[in-house]
Amino acid sequence: MTKIKIAIISYGRIGKVHMKNLAINPDFEVVMVCDIIEDPDFKEDYPAIPFVKDYDEVLANPAVEAVLIGTPTKFHPSQIIAAAKAGKHIFCEKPVGSELDEIMEAYEAVKEAGVKFQLGFNRRFDDDFLNIKARIAEIGEPQILKITSRDPGMPPLDYVKGSGGLFMDMAIHDFDMARYMFGEVKTVSAKGGALIDPAITQYDDIDTAITTLTFENGAMAVVDNSRQAVYGYDQRLEAFGSKGMLANSNHTDHNTIFSGSDHIQSGKPQLFFLERYLKSYDTELKFFADSIKNNAPIACSFEDGIMAVKIAKSAKEALVTGQTIAIEKI
Amino acid sequence: MTKIKIAIISYGRIGKVHMKNLAINPDFEVVMVCDIIEDPDFKEDYPAIPFVKDYDEVLANPAVEAVLIGTPTKFHPSQIIAAAKAGKHIFCEKPVGSELDEIMEAYEAVKEAGVKFQLGFNRRFDDDFLNIKARIAEIGEPQILKITSRDPGMPPLDYVKGSGGLFMDMAIHDFDMARYMFGEVKTVSAKGGALIDPAITQYDDIDTAITTLTFENGAMAVVDNSRQAVYGYDQRLEAFGSKGMLANSNHTDHNTIFSGSDHIQSGKPQLFFLERYLKSYDTELKFFADSIKNNAPIACSFEDGIMAVKIAKSAKEALVTGQTIAIEKI
Amino acid sequence: MTKIKIAIISYGRIGKVHMKNLAINPDFEVVMVCDIIEDPDFKEDYPAIPFVKDYDEVLANPAVEAVLIGTPTKFHPSQIIAAAKAGKHIFCEKPVGSELDEIMEAYEAVKEAGVKFQLGFNRRFDDDFLNIKARIAEIGEPQILKITSRDPGMPPLDYVKGSGGLFMDMAIHDFDMARYMFGEVKTVSAKGGALIDPAITQYDDIDTAITTLTFENGAMAVVDNSRQAVYGYDQRLEAFGSKGMLANSNHTDHNTIFSGSDHIQSGKPQLFFLERYLKSYDTELKFFADSIKNNAPIACSFEDGIMAVKIAKSAKEALVTGQTIAIEKI
Amino acid sequence: MTKIKIAIISYGRIGKVHMKNLAINPDFEVVMVCDIIEDPDFKEDYPAIPFVKDYDEVLANPAVEAVLIGTPTKFHPSQIIAAAKAGKHIFCEKPVGSELDEIMEAYEAVKEAGVKFQLGFNRRFDDDFLNIKARIAEIGEPQILKITSRDPGMPPLDYVKGSGGLFMDMAIHDFDMARYMFGEVKTVSAKGGALIDPAITQYDDIDTAITTLTFENGAMAVVDNSRQAVYGYDQRLEAFGSKGMLANSNHTDHNTIFSGSDHIQSGKPQLFFLERYLKSYDTELKFFADSIKNNAPIACSFEDGIMAVKIAKSAKEALVTGQTIAIEKI
Repeated sequence: MTKIKIAIISYGRIGKVHMKNLAINPDFEVVMVCDIIEDPDFKEDYPAIPFVKDYDEVLANPAVEAVLIGTPTKFHPSQIIAAAKAGKHIFCEKPVGSELDEIMEAYEAVKEAGVKFQLGFNRRFDDDFLNIKARIAEIGEPQILKITSRDPGMPPLDYVKGSGGLFMDMAIHDFDMARYMFGEVKTVSAKGGALIDPAITQYDDIDTAITTLTFENGAMAVVDNSRQAVYGYDQRLEAFGSKGMLANSNHTDHNTIFSGSDHIQSGKPQLFFLERYLKSYDTELKFFADSIKNNAPIACSFEDGIMAVKIAKSAKEALVTGQTIAIEKI
Repeated sequence: MTKIKIAIISYGRIGKVHMKNLAINPDFEVVMVCDIIEDPDFKEDYPAIPFVKDYDEVLANPAVEAVLIGTPTKFHPSQIIAAAKAGKHIFCEKPVGSELDEIMEAYEAVKEAGVKFQLGFNRRFDDDFLNIKARIAEIGEPQILKITSRDPGMPPLDYVKGSGGLFMDMAIHDFDMARYMFGEVKTVSAKGGALIDPAITQYDDIDTAITTLTFENGAMAVVDNSRQAVYGYDQRLEAFGSKGMLANSNHTDHNTIFSGSDHIQSGKPQLFFLERYLKSYDTELKFFADSIKNNAPIACSFEDGIMAVKIAKSAKEALVTGQTIAIEKI
Repeated sequence: MTKIKIAIISYGRIGKVHMKNLAINPDFEVVMVCDIIEDPDFKEDYPAIPFVKDYDEVLANPAVEAVLIGTPTKFHPSQIIAAAKAGKHIFCEKPVGSELDEIMEAYEAVKEAGVKFQLGFNRRFDDDFLNIKARIAEIGEPQILKITSRDPGMPPLDYVKGSGGLFMDMAIHDFDMARYMFGEVKTVSAKGGALIDPAITQYDDIDTAITTLTFENGAMAVVDNSRQAVYGYDQRLEAFGSKGMLANSNHTDHNTIFSGSDHIQSGKPQLFFLERYLKSYDTELKFFADSIKNNAPIACSFEDGIMAVKIAKSAKEALVTGQTIAIEKI
Repeated sequence: MTKIKIAIISYGRIGKVHMKNLAINPDFEVVMVCDIIEDPDFKEDYPAIPFVKDYDEVLANPAVEAVLIGTPTKFHPSQIIAAAKAGKHIFCEKPVGSELDEIMEAYEAVKEAGVKFQLGFNRRFDDDFLNIKARIAEIGEPQILKITSRDPGMPPLDYVKGSGGLFMDMAIHDFDMARYMFGEVKTVSAKGGALIDPAITQYDDIDTAITTLTFENGAMAVVDNSRQAVYGYDQRLEAFGSKGMLANSNHTDHNTIFSGSDHIQSGKPQLFFLERYLKSYDTELKFFADSIKNNAPIACSFEDGIMAVKIAKSAKEALVTGQTIAIEKI
């Protein structure tokens, strides 16, 4: 069993998560790590792996079979194009890009090169959602999808500034989840506001939103987002249809129930995405390996990435105009 | 302690529920029951209570201090006006009427007569919602309200025909609940369709809807309605704000959990509104008595009834036009 | 449909509960109430019902068909005998008596008179336990029964003094429940102590106990009792067998879950037995009426009462001797 | 940071779990694996690690600092003694031995050698129980401990034969847990039988038991064991005291709730101990490393192992004699 030789592009918070998972993943061998900023601990933690600052150096290395791109969103399209031209398989963090014309250019490059491409909508690979997805036929005809997706606290304003806004940065996960569960989206409408911190409006952003989607099969979805649920990261989904409902619940930081003289108390939801979705980052790489090694279908495709961006951009338009926006197909 | 002498107008399904509650309510004495169709069992069940067919006979009876109106919606305004002119206190089932001009006329008549008027949005008087309402300050600034309101099965098409449609017949309870919890509604948007039974479209109606409300304080609400949840009557509410979330859960038909070789199984939600909200029909009469006897504030006012109708009518308009509709004040 | 004419013997806390239920029960008519202490409100509350101080007056009244005995335990056997001799049907609060010889004498008197006799182990008539009992075959061969039965707070020492002790006063309900669910008890063992308040030892009593029962079919049960669960009245049962487990959970004082920055909080168990088992006091009377009117089998028989006392007395013996005590049959 | 050089003794089911955990544990380096039966896959899986058949070869290797003993119980004492004499730190699977005289001899050897010794009562290191243990003061004075511990299915009779019986093989975990939570045990009583499979009696064993413990502080515990819960591995604990109760619940194989027309269904408990307690096998090694490297207190000591064996043996005696057995101290 030969291992897939992979390079990690960008060694920030998420790049480190991937490094840890890849280090013990029997399908992969990390042969290079690339970041413009040198990490002080990397040499000690992984003395055998070359750390480079130049992405071209990675692409020029014939031993590299695949790249894992975790750079800021705006760099995704050009880095995808370069990797595709170099014949490398690509795993790219979400979203696939911020501008649709650039995204479509990258999409064409990948198709032309014929390399494997998987997008990192990691929640698709969470055990809860894999279970519901696998059992979705149990609900019969899909009718109503409800997604609650709330972060535990406002991000720094500095982050907000470059985030692309609530829809592109946060709700895009939920829009992808909606498509994953119920299929192609037809229209989007949205309401939202700066209910938590008005300072966010200086970046033309909101912190709270309710988005309604309609699907080509007639079903509907509602996504409610908040940047700050004081009780913790709230990630719930209900899929309702003609034969019943499938739902998950939050994962708590502990499993203890305390019955006291005042209240019955249970644990809070796990802190944030790195805790709640930890395993999904590992699972998505298993699917990626499976597509490269066994030609298995891509579990989260470039097309999925494009559609999610289209919905997010339309949600913003719907919010501003108060109109229902139709989603164009690729 | 003298009892309030009350007459029940209309002795159908809900009239019988009220009769049973009033019969053992220490604050009321039922002195007349009125329906155009004679009930075969009434004489035997309540031999001491006169049963009449003519509403005028009720109003002409000086012993009658209050009427409980449970007739079809279209009769409400004229019956309210007549009762008000006769100086009777009025408890009227929801909705207060179907046409806004008639409703406003009745509203003026009640104000002029100075009689007490309470509307039967019984869910306000349910223990769950009373508890959440009483504790609403615990969530801090209100931000997101989510109401799931699904019936256990499609009503007969014959019922649908005269029902006023999903928004006026069913969602109106949820719109009132939204105002009860979060205050005055500013706008409404809606999506919906005939996902359960296309036959419903012949009456220009839908069976599934997602309605988004915005409030004057900036908060938002989403109501999802379905005429058919195969697992039973689904009635849940989540009130989310800057300091936390208050939520209730469904009431089940039993409290037993069976752990078997295949699954862990618990009870289904109680069948329908007469089971789930049984106690609320009793509680709302206690509030009504309190307003008559002790001049306590009306717990569900004429104005509440008008606003709920306005929102329901606007939701229909929003559905048809795809627009966000602003709600006019009284 | 003629009503059963019943007299209530003892108008204390539990007598009042029965009076309220009987007043609106279509099967019964309360024709007398008897207590040695006159209740100040009774006359006003029930002006039409004669209140007497002499039990003999009740028995001498030919209109009285049945008596409901709610006096202190020590009076039960003689009052049962007198009622049986007078040909009255008998509903008697638990326990049936405190001394076995007296109890057996009363038992013979009831058999001889041929009157109906039902004992007030009200928990048998609770919806939760009725549901589990009705479904007990779902667990296959019964193997392990677990009953948690904890009061919300220590009773006054004065009550403890005359209570008969934890086993006779409190655990006797659980011993009856064990027989109700799993059948005839073969042996009993017990451990216990005064862990809450050592003052209880002056009355040779305990406040905390773990009792193990074995059944004739080989199954086993464990009952854990505490006089003080600070979080409220804890009443749970698990019936485990070869095909699965049936379990109930506590009823809470409200159905709201609050998710806050510190904890997720839900309601406490309902305060005590009058709240938790309120409906069972009504249901048991329906069964009693059914046995009188329709000759339906007695739902909680004299024999059930005798066996519960035998187990309770043996539990005390087991506690003192450290031995396993065999239960003698009637 | 130098790694602790450890050898795994016995490469069966549990040895492989430890090998996997140690392979990615930064505190350890596996330098040898020893088993009398060669594992066919080992060479390929871990080509760099020597696999030997002779335990003496391990002990003779000066590079080996610690041994992890996972052999059958009867070999534990002699292997502990040999390791101690060789100056190796010892991690030993539970139980520490089957005969008390051998166990005590090994105990003396370990004390004399001054090596670190940790016993593998892995449940102490489960997140649920670590959480309850850490918060045990929240319940105030401990009063009642309830442990439900049921396996998902009868083991093969061949396993039963050499298992030491239900108390030594299975309940011993629960007896250790009881001591871990509530402190030193004073007496034990037990009831049990062959309710699942009578064939087990040929090995003088039982498959179902209820064991009652009393503690030196007056508190009590009850442990109920079954070899076969058809719904899965049932592992629950409730610690009840003067200020409240701490309890955990089972971990389910998935987090999805399906609401259907018949039932509300949730996931079953995880299959068995390797699933339920997977993480604890990793955590216990972290504690072991901490004791070796930083001289941290032993988290599960030799004394803990001795006491658990004493309780298990006394439970058997209690079962046979029907007596309450006092536990002798070390």
